[in-house]
Amino acid sequence: MNNRTLEPGQARSMIRSGHRFSTTSGISLGYAQANIVILPEDYAADFHRFCTLNRKACPLLYVSAAGQTEAPALGADIDIRTDIAGYRVYRNGKLTEQQHTIQELWRKDFVTFYIGCSFSFEEALISHGIPLRHVENGSNVSMFNTNVPLHDAGPFKGNMVVSYRPMRPADAIRAIQITSDMSQVHGAPVHIGNPSQIGIDDIRTPDYGDRVDILEGEIEVFWKTPSCLTGAAGLIRMSSISGTS
Amino acid sequence: MNNRTLEPGQARSMIRSGHRFSTTSGISLGYAQANIVILPEDYAADFHRFCTLNRKACPLLYVSAAGQTEAPALGADIDIRTDIAGYRVYRNGKLTEQQHTIQELWRKDFVTFYIGCSFSFEEALISHGIPLRHVENGSNVSMFNTNVPLHDAGPFKGNMVVSYRPMRPADAIRAIQITSDMSQVHGAPVHIGNPSQIGIDDIRTPDYGDRVDILEGEIEVFWKTPSCLTGAAGLIRMSSISGTS
Repeated sequence: MNNRTLEPGQARSMIRSGHRFSTTSGISLGYAQANIVILPEDYAADFHRFCTLNRKACPLLYVSAAGQTEAPALGADIDIRTDIAGYRVYRNGKLTEQQHTIQELWRKDFVTFYIGCSFSFEEALISHGIPLRHVENGSNVSMFNTNVPLHDAGPFKGNMVVSYRPMRPADAIRAIQITSDMSQVHGAPVHIGNPSQIGIDDIRTPDYGDRVDILEGEIEVFWKTPSCLTGAAGLIRMSSISGTS
Repeated sequence: MNNRTLEPGQARSMIRSGHRFSTTSGISLGYAQANIVILPEDYAADFHRFCTLNRKACPLLYVSAAGQTEAPALGADIDIRTDIAGYRVYRNGKLTEQQHTIQELWRKDFVTFYIGCSFSFEEALISHGIPLRHVENGSNVSMFNTNVPLHDAGPFKGNMVVSYRPMRPADAIRAIQITSDMSQVHGAPVHIGNPSQIGIDDIRTPDYGDRVDILEGEIEVFWKTPSCLTGAAGLIRMSSISGTS
């Protein structure tokens, strides 16, 4: 079984049946993946505003109605309580547990946000012949806090977080062209070169993910990534496969 | 005074001081304009979902907090109660009056949606040398109901409405390229050629706006446009100048 060529529905079905993927990076290439945030309805209006006001950090693919476990506009059968590779459960802002289903935690006032994930555009870059070192290394992408504030919405606030990929200048130009057309999954880079301009002191020590080396003649390329979870209370976050066919 | 070169802040200031623009088409070229929808907070969550689920019809530039009359993320001083060229007031789904300010109608539970307007991309097309017949005629763009359903969200539902611009095939290709990069103001066309494929029976009788003639050798080009007002109760709709600099 080759995970790269799984149809999204197949991958979700495997997860629903108990298969444990360690990560959904590299699964179902060519389809959009989503970061999933589930919140009580009382927080949903502010979080929806936060995503709309910071669309490049949190590009919304879908927002459910309260209690809705499907996402029909994504054109696929989805049960958000069972089809995600892993669920992190936050209570009062603290990570309290990790689960493989949330059927027993589900509430009728839960609203689900499907946020475009950079796993989607990485496949496009690779298919255009742009090497990504962290993928070649089999590691997670490097991510950094910046000094660039996002727009506040109610309790949701914080500075931009960026993912970092070193590449040759010609590849950086191609990557800008390719991802500019992918606004549903973060779109064009937010910054290139000189990490200190956005408040990154040491490119060798990421705040999240894994370190990646930059080679002679390469330039730093930064994309916005969902940092949207600062200040959220009672929040469940997950990584997901959300197939849009 | 040339309206085309007005800074958005100047135009808003003129409106606030009582100047009556008959339309904001052609004002402050090079800046984004917004369609404005103001709703009581009770309807805001569903309408926000409606826009997110139908982003090409209703591309959101900004969503206010309840009672917020400014839009700081747009980088300009805006008072949404006074700075709009005209306000249509709907009560229980019926247009009851038109106003030049809504200061006396304003409520602390009002949420304002700023939706990207095609007046913005028309200027880009013209500046790239693509003639637009309705602009040359000094008339409004032709708009049509289609048979293509939008995604429902609570009480908000309906079929897609499209704006229609006839042009030569080479210009149509350029127009697709130019507007593909403008996802905040409807982005690429949704359909070209054969109007009957999307349920338009007679291209000479638009459902909204003015009739425009198609010349020998031209092709029909259709963009999604905000039709988001079907089924809304107690709704205020306006056309606005919202400058993003």
